[in-house]
Amino acid sequence: MAPVSELNPPARLLLGPGPSPVHPRVLRAMSTPLLGHLDPDFLGIMNDVQAQLREAFGTKNPFTIAISGTGSAGMEAALVNLLEPGDTAIVCVAGVFGSRMADIVGRCGAKLVKLETPWGQVTDLARIEEALKTSGPVKVVAVVHAETSTGAQQPMEGLGKLCHKHGALLVVDTVTSLGGVPVEVDAWEADGVYSGTQKCLSCPPGLAPLTFSPRALDVIKARKTKCLSWYLDCSMIADYWADGKRAYHHTAPITMVYAIREALRIVLEEGLPARFARHRRHSAALMAGLATLGCAPQAQEGHRLPSLNCIQVPAGVEEAPIRKKILLENGIEIGGGLGPLAGKVWRIGLMGYGSSQENVLAVLAALEQQLQKAGRPVKLGAAGAAALTSYAAAG
Amino acid sequence: MAPVSELNPPARLLLGPGPSPVHPRVLRAMSTPLLGHLDPDFLGIMNDVQAQLREAFGTKNPFTIAISGTGSAGMEAALVNLLEPGDTAIVCVAGVFGSRMADIVGRCGAKLVKLETPWGQVTDLARIEEALKTSGPVKVVAVVHAETSTGAQQPMEGLGKLCHKHGALLVVDTVTSLGGVPVEVDAWEADGVYSGTQKCLSCPPGLAPLTFSPRALDVIKARKTKCLSWYLDCSMIADYWADGKRAYHHTAPITMVYAIREALRIVLEEGLPARFARHRRHSAALMAGLATLGCAPQAQEGHRLPSLNCIQVPAGVEEAPIRKKILLENGIEIGGGLGPLAGKVWRIGLMGYGSSQENVLAVLAALEQQLQKAGRPVKLGAAGAAALTSYAAAG
Repeated sequence: MAPVSELNPPARLLLGPGPSPVHPRVLRAMSTPLLGHLDPDFLGIMNDVQAQLREAFGTKNPFTIAISGTGSAGMEAALVNLLEPGDTAIVCVAGVFGSRMADIVGRCGAKLVKLETPWGQVTDLARIEEALKTSGPVKVVAVVHAETSTGAQQPMEGLGKLCHKHGALLVVDTVTSLGGVPVEVDAWEADGVYSGTQKCLSCPPGLAPLTFSPRALDVIKARKTKCLSWYLDCSMIADYWADGKRAYHHTAPITMVYAIREALRIVLEEGLPARFARHRRHSAALMAGLATLGCAPQAQEGHRLPSLNCIQVPAGVEEAPIRKKILLENGIEIGGGLGPLAGKVWRIGLMGYGSSQENVLAVLAALEQQLQKAGRPVKLGAAGAAALTSYAAAG
Repeated sequence: MAPVSELNPPARLLLGPGPSPVHPRVLRAMSTPLLGHLDPDFLGIMNDVQAQLREAFGTKNPFTIAISGTGSAGMEAALVNLLEPGDTAIVCVAGVFGSRMADIVGRCGAKLVKLETPWGQVTDLARIEEALKTSGPVKVVAVVHAETSTGAQQPMEGLGKLCHKHGALLVVDTVTSLGGVPVEVDAWEADGVYSGTQKCLSCPPGLAPLTFSPRALDVIKARKTKCLSWYLDCSMIADYWADGKRAYHHTAPITMVYAIREALRIVLEEGLPARFARHRRHSAALMAGLATLGCAPQAQEGHRLPSLNCIQVPAGVEEAPIRKKILLENGIEIGGGLGPLAGKVWRIGLMGYGSSQENVLAVLAALEQQLQKAGRPVKLGAAGAAALTSYAAAG
C-alpha cells in the first residue's frame, strides 16, 4: 500500500452535538507516558477519578467508575447489568437515545414498555406513573435526562421516589448533561446513571462514567443469569475498581483515564455551580442571536438544554448545504437533525470548554454569512448584537 | 473533596504483558485537537486506518476496523456477532484468554465444546479435527494465536481449511501477536480475527482491531436473532466504517483513532518482516540471559512467542517480592502469573517499541540485582553477557 501521510487534520471549532473542543490541558495529559493498569500508582489515579466522578454526579455511591467505551457502552452497561430475560422495563422515548435504550432492552430479552413522546417534548411524570401501575412488576424505568437529538431536558423531580414506590429502579442517561447541567444522582434517587466524556467534560470520547446505587448493586448481585456482556459485566469490573482488590478484568484504557482525570480537575476547579451558570449564560446569548435569524427552538419551553441548542431551520432554507459550508468555509462543526428531525434542525453544542462568548459570536457570524450567501435577507451583525445584549442583561 | 493534584506518574519501563511502552510519536499524535466523528476529514483518517490494518492483518477483508474498546471488546465482538443461542462453538483453552472466550460463548447461549490443554502447551490440530467430527454442526472454532498468560504461540497451518471443511468459522485472538509476530488472516483462512492496540503496536489500550471474512459477514447477515450487544453489533458498525455510508452509530474514540493511525504508520515504515525479525532477535537474547539465572521457559519448545516471554521462577525464589522491587526500585514493570501459574512465572513483554537491546539489558540487570539482594548466588553481568553473545551470534 502507499504510505499514509503525517497526521495533519484541519482545525475545526467543534460546536456540534459532540465531541466538544477538548481542553488543551486534557490533550497535554494524554501525552503522558503510560503506567501499567495494575501499577500501584495507576490504582491511585483510579481512586482520584472515582472521587471526582462522585462529586460531578452528586453521589456517594461507592460504585462510581468509568466504563472502557464511549457513552453508548455506558448505556449498554447500565441496562445489561440490571435486566434479565423476562424482566419488564419502561423506556421513555423522545429522541434517538431513548430509542437506543429501547433497542438494548429488547436485546436483553426483557419486555419493553415504550412511552413515546414527540421529539423535543419531555415525558410527563403522570404517564410514567400510569405505566408503572399497569405494566405488572417493573424492573427498570429508563429516561434520558439530556436528549442530544432534540435539546430537551427531562425534569427529574420525584421520579426516583415514584420508581421505588413501585419497586422499580431508575436508569438515567446524562451523556449531554454531566458537567454542564446539574446532575444530582443521590437527590434524584437514581439507581443507574451513565454519561460520556466528549460532551460537557471536554475530554475526547472513549470512556463512559457510570454509577450504580447500592440498591442497583443488590439487584446485580441477585441475578439468576450471567450478564449478557463479559466486557461490561459490572460484577467483575467492580473488583478491578474496588480499592484493595484491583483484580485484573480487562486492560483499562490508561491514557483515557489520564484524560478524564484532568478534565474533571478542570470541572471541579471551576466549580459546578459556576460551570452550570456559564452554560446557561452562553446558551441564552446564542438563542437570542439565533432568534434574529428566524431560528426557533425545537425543544419544549422551560425544558431546554443549555449544552445542546436545537433550533429549527428557517422555512425555505436547505439545511445540509448551509451546514457543510459552515464546516468547510468557517471551520465550525454544527450538527444536523437525526431521524424525523433530519433536514429540519441544527444542533449547536456549547459544552464545557466550548461554552464561551467567542464561540457564540463565531457561530452566529458564520450562520449570518452563509444564510446571506444562500440569498436570505440577513442584517449582518444583528445576531451578534443580540447576543451581546443578552450578555449585558445577564450582568 | 480535596483537590486532586497535577498528573505526575512515575516513569516506568513497561516490560510486562501489556501495555507496552507507547512510541513518542503516538503520544504526540494523541495531543492533536479533535475532528468530529462524521467530519469528511475524519472519514479519510478512518479509511487510512482500515488500509493499514488490512496490511498488518495480512488480509483483503473489506470489513477491517477498530472496535471502540480494549482487546477484550474485540474478543466479545468477534463472538457475539457470529454466535446465536443454540449454536455450537469449540474453544481451545490453554490459558486465561481461551477461558475468557469460553465464558463469552456461554453468555451467547451457545453450546460450548472446550478443548483444554495444559497452560504453556498448544492445541493439537488432530484434537480439533476430532471435536469437529463429534460435536454435531459447529458454528465457530476459537483459538488464541498468542496466549498472553503463558507465552505460547498456537500454530495456525491448516486450521482454517479444516474448519471450513466441517462448515465452521475460525475465530482467532491475535492480541499479543499483531505487529510483532506474523499474522496472516487470509493465508490462515481465518474468519474473525481481533487484536488490541497496547501490545506489539505500541499504542495505548482503547481500540480493538477486528476483521471479518466475507464468509463471516454472510453468517452475520443471515442471523435469525439480533446480536446480543448493541454497542458491538457489527451489522450497524459496518455502516459507520463503510466508505460512502458513514451512518452514525456511536461516537468513535477519535483520539485513539489518531493514535492507532500513527502506530500503524510506524509499524509499516519499519516493515513487517524487519519488525518480526527484531522481535525474534531480542527475545532470543533475553532468553539467553534468563537461562544464566536459572529461569526456564514456560511455553512448549518450538511454540514460544517472542513478544511475551514467560519463564518459570527459579525454585526457592519468592515471585511477588522480586517483581515488586523491580517495579519500585528499578522502575521496570514485568508481569506475574495468572490462574494456575500465579506465583510460578514471570512474564516479560518485549513488544513493539519495547523490543530493544537496551530494554533486554535493563531487565536482565534488574533481575540480577534483585535476585542477588534476595540471597541468590548471582554472578552480576553474566546475564547481560549471555544476551550480548546471543546478539553477536545473530550477526
